[in-house]
Amino acid sequence: MQPPFLSRTTRHEIPTQGKGTYDLTPLLTETVARAQVLDGTATVFVAHTSASLVIFENADPTARADLHAFFEQLVPEHAQGYQHTAEGPDDMTSHLRMVLTRTSEVIPITRGCPVLGTWQGLYLFEHRRAPHRRTIWINVQGSTLPA
Amino acid sequence: MQPPFLSRTTRHEIPTQGKGTYDLTPLLTETVARAQVLDGTATVFVAHTSASLVIFENADPTARADLHAFFEQLVPEHAQGYQHTAEGPDDMTSHLRMVLTRTSEVIPITRGCPVLGTWQGLYLFEHRRAPHRRTIWINVQGSTLPA
Amino acid sequence: MQPPFLSRTTRHEIPTQGKGTYDLTPLLTETVARAQVLDGTATVFVAHTSASLVIFENADPTARADLHAFFEQLVPEHAQGYQHTAEGPDDMTSHLRMVLTRTSEVIPITRGCPVLGTWQGLYLFEHRRAPHRRTIWINVQGSTLPA
Repeated sequence: MQPPFLSRTTRHEIPTQGKGTYDLTPLLTETVARAQVLDGTATVFVAHTSASLVIFENADPTARADLHAFFEQLVPEHAQGYQHTAEGPDDMTSHLRMVLTRTSEVIPITRGCPVLGTWQGLYLFEHRRAPHRRTIWINVQGSTLPA
Repeated sequence: MQPPFLSRTTRHEIPTQGKGTYDLTPLLTETVARAQVLDGTATVFVAHTSASLVIFENADPTARADLHAFFEQLVPEHAQGYQHTAEGPDDMTSHLRMVLTRTSEVIPITRGCPVLGTWQGLYLFEHRRAPHRRTIWINVQGSTLPA
Repeated sequence: MQPPFLSRTTRHEIPTQGKGTYDLTPLLTETVARAQVLDGTATVFVAHTSASLVIFENADPTARADLHAFFEQLVPEHAQGYQHTAEGPDDMTSHLRMVLTRTSEVIPITRGCPVLGTWQGLYLFEHRRAPHRRTIWINVQGSTLPA
């Protein structure tokens, strides 16, 4: 007999090709579907301090371009005075852009699906210039019975 | 027999009358009470990309006025260079103000109540000028037995 | 027989000695270990509006020094025009710095441990100049059986 409550944490490797936002929505949806939780939560977590999460407008690509440009301006690489610069001008700015966005995001699940709105996508926000492999953890937790 | 563990996700429609913060604390408290979870978590989620959540000072209304003014300044509508402007000057700024605050917030529950501090209120932060109906999801999950 | 699913919310008092970041990682790890949850989530929540949470670079102390300096600049105490100033120049700035960082953070648990990355530490971010005692709540929830 399947237990009425379950928790399943899975690890995922996401390759990035430098600064920008990478759509994690299909990964989220598939991971929730595979867990067979009908009512509960999906917790997404980035195991890094120079990449982060945002839930963002998914329809018009210029919205994401404006997002990237905004963070270049709010946390500029050419700013003077950073001490933590061992890995280059995108080192400290990566930590600051990460801290202004999200490390964890929790999305409720109902009827077996995450409740993202029509225009919401879940994105990995890469803050480093160089390509990286990023580790994302997803915990799906809740009831396998209808609410 | 009531199950010792449960998860209940509910949908709520919140009308807003333009930019500002709207108190969701009574909705949170009632939703947690109704679920009869004694120890667990309440996950609040906004299903939009131009409105967000903040947990904020609930006593002095000038604190919220200063919050609103701060975001007008940090992400100004008169800024040049946004590409995503189809819906007016409060379009792209809404997405940026949302991304700097929260889409999801998780509040632990103990003895059947969310653990908000004395001066903490949960607010919906509306970033658009026009009135909207906003969809909020609340998942309450945990044990129906005392810890 | 131990139940296969459990939720345990505990309260912790953290003393701070003025502005800065205070490492909560050992508290998180111990609280998760004590709960005996093998797969699930740890939700950390600050019950205050002038202190917050960040998951941040834990190796090089200059990264945290740059973080502190960045927030002094992004939300400056010498800014004109705040109305909410009853408790001094670090009053309103504390609320704004809190709202730009996190009140809650959720970390998945697998094999009985939080999934923090190698360079990730969980920090309490104190925004007030004076020493305070801060209340942190931690909910640990999930399965006591291996996934």
